[in-house]
Amino acid sequence: MLDPADWESFRAAAHRALDDAVDYLRDVRERPAWQPVPQSVKAELAEPLPADGAPFAAVYAQFARAILPYATGNIHPRFWGWVHGSGTPGGAVAELLAATMNANVGGRDHAAVYVERQVIAWFRELFGLPGADGGVLLTGTSAANLVALLAARTRALGSGVRKHGVYAGGERLRAYASSATHACVRKAFEMAGLGSDTLRVLPADAAHRLDLQLLRRTVESDINSGLRPFFVVANAGSVDAGAIDDLAAVAGIASAFDLWFHVDGAFGAAACLSPRLQPKFEGIERADSIAFDFHKWLHVPYDAGCVLIRDPEIERATFAGGGPYFRRMPRGTGAGEPWFADYGPDLSRGFRALKIWFTIKEHGASGLARAIQRNCDQARTLYDRLTADPDFEPLLEPELQIVCFRPRGGGLEPAQIDRLIDESVMSLQESGVAVISTTTIGGRRAMRLCITNHRTEDADLEEALGALRSIVRDGRDAPT
Amino acid sequence: MLDPADWESFRAAAHRALDDAVDYLRDVRERPAWQPVPQSVKAELAEPLPADGAPFAAVYAQFARAILPYATGNIHPRFWGWVHGSGTPGGAVAELLAATMNANVGGRDHAAVYVERQVIAWFRELFGLPGADGGVLLTGTSAANLVALLAARTRALGSGVRKHGVYAGGERLRAYASSATHACVRKAFEMAGLGSDTLRVLPADAAHRLDLQLLRRTVESDINSGLRPFFVVANAGSVDAGAIDDLAAVAGIASAFDLWFHVDGAFGAAACLSPRLQPKFEGIERADSIAFDFHKWLHVPYDAGCVLIRDPEIERATFAGGGPYFRRMPRGTGAGEPWFADYGPDLSRGFRALKIWFTIKEHGASGLARAIQRNCDQARTLYDRLTADPDFEPLLEPELQIVCFRPRGGGLEPAQIDRLIDESVMSLQESGVAVISTTTIGGRRAMRLCITNHRTEDADLEEALGALRSIVRDGRDAPT
Repeated sequence: MLDPADWESFRAAAHRALDDAVDYLRDVRERPAWQPVPQSVKAELAEPLPADGAPFAAVYAQFARAILPYATGNIHPRFWGWVHGSGTPGGAVAELLAATMNANVGGRDHAAVYVERQVIAWFRELFGLPGADGGVLLTGTSAANLVALLAARTRALGSGVRKHGVYAGGERLRAYASSATHACVRKAFEMAGLGSDTLRVLPADAAHRLDLQLLRRTVESDINSGLRPFFVVANAGSVDAGAIDDLAAVAGIASAFDLWFHVDGAFGAAACLSPRLQPKFEGIERADSIAFDFHKWLHVPYDAGCVLIRDPEIERATFAGGGPYFRRMPRGTGAGEPWFADYGPDLSRGFRALKIWFTIKEHGASGLARAIQRNCDQARTLYDRLTADPDFEPLLEPELQIVCFRPRGGGLEPAQIDRLIDESVMSLQESGVAVISTTTIGGRRAMRLCITNHRTEDADLEEALGALRSIVRDGRDAPT
Repeated sequence: MLDPADWESFRAAAHRALDDAVDYLRDVRERPAWQPVPQSVKAELAEPLPADGAPFAAVYAQFARAILPYATGNIHPRFWGWVHGSGTPGGAVAELLAATMNANVGGRDHAAVYVERQVIAWFRELFGLPGADGGVLLTGTSAANLVALLAARTRALGSGVRKHGVYAGGERLRAYASSATHACVRKAFEMAGLGSDTLRVLPADAAHRLDLQLLRRTVESDINSGLRPFFVVANAGSVDAGAIDDLAAVAGIASAFDLWFHVDGAFGAAACLSPRLQPKFEGIERADSIAFDFHKWLHVPYDAGCVLIRDPEIERATFAGGGPYFRRMPRGTGAGEPWFADYGPDLSRGFRALKIWFTIKEHGASGLARAIQRNCDQARTLYDRLTADPDFEPLLEPELQIVCFRPRGGGLEPAQIDRLIDESVMSLQESGVAVISTTTIGGRRAMRLCITNHRTEDADLEEALGALRSIVRDGRDAPT
């Protein structure tokens, strides 16, 4: 009833949309890295709920005019703001195919389930976790960190926590992470009812890494105070600086104190695909859980994250359940145990695995690793240049692909430089040349350039740095 | 670096994939409703992490051979198991376009943000919630119920719950739902650290609705015991039977006792689009929160759910936050406040809104309502037939689109009928004619036929019922 009355005219419209999509990706360099959404477009989109439909081609025409031009920008070769992946053409077509099959991967027996199992098995293999089972695809690392924490909560408090809540013993639990840890970890503690007070945020060292001495001392002190340390988060690529904690050392401390060892590898863990970079992550194979994204440095279209849990029993003990309408059957559509609904929060689940499967199959571990390595090389080159730059000073040696830097003082007060940073970053974005973002490094506001981008050529960095330099010099001449 | 070396050969391969996808949807009737995944396919998929890539066309060929034929089945006109949407061709192309733009709708200033805001505004308008702000798109109603509960937890315990956990006062909280409520509501209480003991599951009445007297009595009794009632869940379409609670009456009780009034409308709330069905949902406009899916009765491809929260302040007080890398800016890419990351669990978020926007625009409220009404009419017709059927007895009058029934006794013991149900449902699935599922109604195992399917013609139900009748008669002659 919602299918096209005329399949061939739908087909023609869909082919036009596909052609436009391919052109859009091919010609991305010809467009600005970002442009604001015009007021007229915002006004046009804000219409009442449409009573009647319109031909697909007409809806598409409005999309092509009003929505498509005003993208986030992250597919552009000179987008280096925050941590965004760039997507791939193959990944986009995979989304078409997943939506065509329209699989619900909450459970049941069909191919999508086996594709997701395989994707999970591949990354368990990559990180050195034993076996193929344990983990689930999710929207992203925010959800993955939450699922890992809930599994650790089960280990600490027993599966009775599901029935009784956190009241019996939860208040004594303590967890540990460095101050370089992403805010979504704190959010996970909030959502889980444990409260962010449970999470001790330890000042990171100068290289944005977990201070191991401080970790050990704090755990010991908490034990002496009658508290119960249960969870430690290590970063495999911190959000501001791309720092990688000493995972083997953290694993050792976790083991000594019986802590759940969680690795937040949102973007960084993907670098394990590179034999050159993999040694930086030694110890990841000892993790109890690993959270990471496919939509960042693996360039799978949004959204696609994953949690891997070493012990699938704990994961099932945390999430399995359901009603009589959800009964498993020995044969037929209702077979296919175990069901992914028992491995995470969602009972209905999309076929996220397909775009990941396509991406891994099309590019292989080696192709993805080459793109990652190039980004790291580009960051290193940029850092080296900035050390001798007249206008900018780098704030931190890049471990991976992030360079944080700041205009040199040159007579301006720190607060003036802060304003210069904000204004310059906004102006660069508005120019359409490039997108970078800001953060704070060692208490100082910083420009942050994160090259999670397979389209970035070395010349793109040259061009953007030139544009930024002009903007900063102009702003310096007219400080606000 | 991950873009095609030869765009035109990629384009050709993508067009072939699109043609196949259109054929696949057009010709869905020619395929079985479901078929098992062959062992050879499972074995083929279970390969080690590929070191090297392969041309997109080669990956696609493997997909077309090994994955595409073995779908969940829910796009088929005779799939009525569980509650699955059927998808649409337009929704599938919209996913291609969303993945092409590859927007991250966690925040920032770009068109995808305005599309999501508009989708939320449309459904606030439909349900009669005030204003346009409050709510977020999510994977599905499992996540939506959790977000609603966390917002209610904030109202009950204050936003200090984020820091201090649920310990100060959480143990005294009590929530209420009928036994017809979906298991994901219980799961939300588990995840939130409150524990499922917090949720009082009240036996539903014979029509699978919340017993209002019992609700009132239980709330009063809890108050008298020093407990603190804070949350009530009403079903707008219960999972087993499609029952709709008396929403206006529940709203009244919620108001009298200062409970957060949450509506779980996973599939049923969509029926509000139909002027004929809308009166059944009177009172939904008084909800503090509504959880529902687009991937069920609105046929948006998986996954796409939504929570609407009456008071956006409480939602932000529950979820807003972030680090210095997440700072909002007055202009440029980092503008666009409020950011959706402050409205829910995820900081990175896909462009789910686009496939919803396309679906609403292409079919309009009226087109979607017609498909919903037809399903309800079909369920009613089937129910009427079964009341006089020699082989089957219906167990419950359908409120919406679900018919639960059971083979008539005819000399078999109840346990034999239970086994006959299981065997017959599995055999029907294996025959490829149709997919239905099972549940328990009033303590009795039931066949459950849920017509959340815009492709179902009346003749499909005839055909499936005939096939099921033969299977049941054969099984009856040879009981296991």
